[in-house]
Amino acid sequence: MTTTSAQTTWLTALRETLPPDALHVDPETLAAHTRDSAPFSEAGTPAVVVTPVTVEQVQGVLRTAHAHRVPVVPQGARTGLAGAANADEGGIVLSTLRMDRILEIDPGNRLVVCQPGVTNRALSDAVAEHGLFFPPDPASWDTCTIGGNIAVGAGGLCCVKYGVTADYVMGLAVVLPNGDLVRTGRRTVKGVAGYDLTRLFVGSEGTLGVIVEATLGLRPPRRPSLALLAAFGSTTAAGEAVAAIIRHGHEPSALELMDAVSTSAVVDLGHPILDRSAAATLIVESDDADPARALDEIARLCRQAGALTVTVAADQEQTTAILDTRRLVLPATQVKAEQMPGDTTAFIEDVCVPRTRLAEFIDQIAAIAEEYGLYISTIGHAGDGNLHPTVVFDRSDPDAVERATRAYDAIMAAGLELGGTITGEHGVGTLKRDWLSCELDPGALRIQHGIKKLLDPLGILNPGKVLAI
Amino acid sequence: MTTTSAQTTWLTALRETLPPDALHVDPETLAAHTRDSAPFSEAGTPAVVVTPVTVEQVQGVLRTAHAHRVPVVPQGARTGLAGAANADEGGIVLSTLRMDRILEIDPGNRLVVCQPGVTNRALSDAVAEHGLFFPPDPASWDTCTIGGNIAVGAGGLCCVKYGVTADYVMGLAVVLPNGDLVRTGRRTVKGVAGYDLTRLFVGSEGTLGVIVEATLGLRPPRRPSLALLAAFGSTTAAGEAVAAIIRHGHEPSALELMDAVSTSAVVDLGHPILDRSAAATLIVESDDADPARALDEIARLCRQAGALTVTVAADQEQTTAILDTRRLVLPATQVKAEQMPGDTTAFIEDVCVPRTRLAEFIDQIAAIAEEYGLYISTIGHAGDGNLHPTVVFDRSDPDAVERATRAYDAIMAAGLELGGTITGEHGVGTLKRDWLSCELDPGALRIQHGIKKLLDPLGILNPGKVLAI
Repeated sequence: MTTTSAQTTWLTALRETLPPDALHVDPETLAAHTRDSAPFSEAGTPAVVVTPVTVEQVQGVLRTAHAHRVPVVPQGARTGLAGAANADEGGIVLSTLRMDRILEIDPGNRLVVCQPGVTNRALSDAVAEHGLFFPPDPASWDTCTIGGNIAVGAGGLCCVKYGVTADYVMGLAVVLPNGDLVRTGRRTVKGVAGYDLTRLFVGSEGTLGVIVEATLGLRPPRRPSLALLAAFGSTTAAGEAVAAIIRHGHEPSALELMDAVSTSAVVDLGHPILDRSAAATLIVESDDADPARALDEIARLCRQAGALTVTVAADQEQTTAILDTRRLVLPATQVKAEQMPGDTTAFIEDVCVPRTRLAEFIDQIAAIAEEYGLYISTIGHAGDGNLHPTVVFDRSDPDAVERATRAYDAIMAAGLELGGTITGEHGVGTLKRDWLSCELDPGALRIQHGIKKLLDPLGILNPGKVLAI
Repeated sequence: MTTTSAQTTWLTALRETLPPDALHVDPETLAAHTRDSAPFSEAGTPAVVVTPVTVEQVQGVLRTAHAHRVPVVPQGARTGLAGAANADEGGIVLSTLRMDRILEIDPGNRLVVCQPGVTNRALSDAVAEHGLFFPPDPASWDTCTIGGNIAVGAGGLCCVKYGVTADYVMGLAVVLPNGDLVRTGRRTVKGVAGYDLTRLFVGSEGTLGVIVEATLGLRPPRRPSLALLAAFGSTTAAGEAVAAIIRHGHEPSALELMDAVSTSAVVDLGHPILDRSAAATLIVESDDADPARALDEIARLCRQAGALTVTVAADQEQTTAILDTRRLVLPATQVKAEQMPGDTTAFIEDVCVPRTRLAEFIDQIAAIAEEYGLYISTIGHAGDGNLHPTVVFDRSDPDAVERATRAYDAIMAAGLELGGTITGEHGVGTLKRDWLSCELDPGALRIQHGIKKLLDPLGILNPGKVLAI
């Protein structure tokens, strides 16, 4: 890549606002920051990666970018699955990874104030030491950052009971595209002073501002949990069990579903407790005051819905074994992918439908896999109606890529047809940008474009993500 | 009021878009729709009150108003306490009271779709018939409308455990100031497709659009509850009890506080179970699986914090007696007001501070009452840090009005000084509009003005509410 004279000008200006160790132009660093974890999404090589450690440095970067009209892409741990953190060719990548301090833990008000680069795990561990619980638990929680979690509105397993990231964001400090710093929200439990700007930034995928600080609500510690596993002969029966569990007022702390493909993948990996013949496996975790009693009732509902077998954990060890089956789906799918010929990859989808349409959706996904001759394993947060079909395909084979792309489109269309949304918790990024106009009505889309224009009139911040330029 | 020729023109246009029974110009109707329940707030007499029953009629009203640049003020049951529904002189009042249908109850997906004019009570009763629970319970729940609840972001007693109105709004249909209809949100539990416009309209107090339909999430039915009542010798001790209850991970379904003034007002009303000598009375309700056990532990924490007496209800009847004391504070304060000389009124305030600053805030309010020679009774949602000081004053006495106004300002200032917000659940309206700029930072305020301008470029919808024109 050659450096243009315009680039030289703004790079010089950038060097004046940042210490040397916060500015990287070596090819290895640039190459390592081109994209997040989404396939099928355009990405370029940035001209520079900046790693500020202070709010003032972030402001300096944005002011420079604004003055020179250079695109800036905020990045956390790049675990995102929609391409929202993919770099622009020749632009600036702003990594928040070094802003990783927890600034305050306030047990009396059950809140924590932190910088965006702290990982979900580090935050969860730190507040746990004070007997507190930060519920959002995306699969990548070990490495993903809080800033990224807020930017995409991340979910996880336990949000069926405890809500998603958005529900825990009380306030933010955000650097706007012009470098101005604004504070939104509050430190109080309640508050309705003015329009809700906090929620506007949550889920905006780094297109409206760079989150530099977050005030997050916390919960009392979780009680010990128990789990059960139920195997069903049809997805319809599993869907009926889910509906019955909800209808009877249960509040499981996880209510997860594995389809036939993911069930047998985990069996093949050597996990003993699953039933290979199951059309669907349901995993239910309860952290109620009396989880054994709750699970007994849930087991009865599963049997009534036609479960082939129901295994209720008697202790923590058996609970872990049951929950592990769910965690093993992705590794098991990746093993399957490696065993297939070609340069295979596993592409994780994210569609959410009304809970009552879950079984129907799973059957439609199976039909789509059949139609396009693809291996698709489906797991999901059944309690939320949020499914993650994972499409395995050979990316070196244009025909397979074409079939995978068409299957992906068919899954989106089916989800919308069932009254669902194109993304439950992964975000829009570039991957689903074109689908957004299928979901939103034209008036709502116009307002979204208006808000983008209001906050980023020059269109320099994460351009082309969520909304088309 | 004389009718101008411009008025004649747009009134004629309005008559063409509405059936005769949806347009009212008789003086009685106009006079009855000038204001909500807030004192100290400017209000005018509208030229017309319209009572549409369809979305198309609402669109017609807005299109006409937009074309002729006539201000439109949306109104529900006018139970608001910040003047957000006060009419503009010579403008249009748009009452949603006749749009009061529940359109759909979906138990499988735990949601309800309704029009804005349905009352909180009618909605709660209707979903209860399906074994479901709509938690938000503002004091005016018997008459206030869901549209109004959403517009101000209403709270209530049980939101300490179950969250506020905003937490239950999944999607909206909104008529914009130009008459366009937009739909926001979704019918799924989770969803992150695009910016969160739903939350932008929630709490915008009718300044960005007229809510014509809402999709609301529901919960499983509440379990039977028990309550306790604890009397304390100091507000500090009561505050310590609240902190201990939270710190120990309890999740009461109500955690309410009455100060010395409100306690003795209820005693004077003849309620037998309160302790007149208490500096503060705490009421705790639990709907846990084992509420008796939870309350036993909470009683122990109250005693450790120095409670003079703790009364734990043994059954539903005693629970009702305890909860009634809290409900009687406002009637008891009104009786006090009636016993005072002059044309007295009771002005309910709404400030929220971090929970740990609660006792401090109550003591400051007592000092303000002393300083300005006013009767102020304070009750509040202690678990949320949300207090409602109620100022009683003689509105026919200019000196008393002046003292009440200054006391009100002193209470706002004290709340902000403690890290609080000027409104926890009543909204900004006109009453707190000037205070909004003290709470929000200038950048955040600029964004709010920008959003108002984006959605209402002519400034015809509820002008001057929340934000200054």
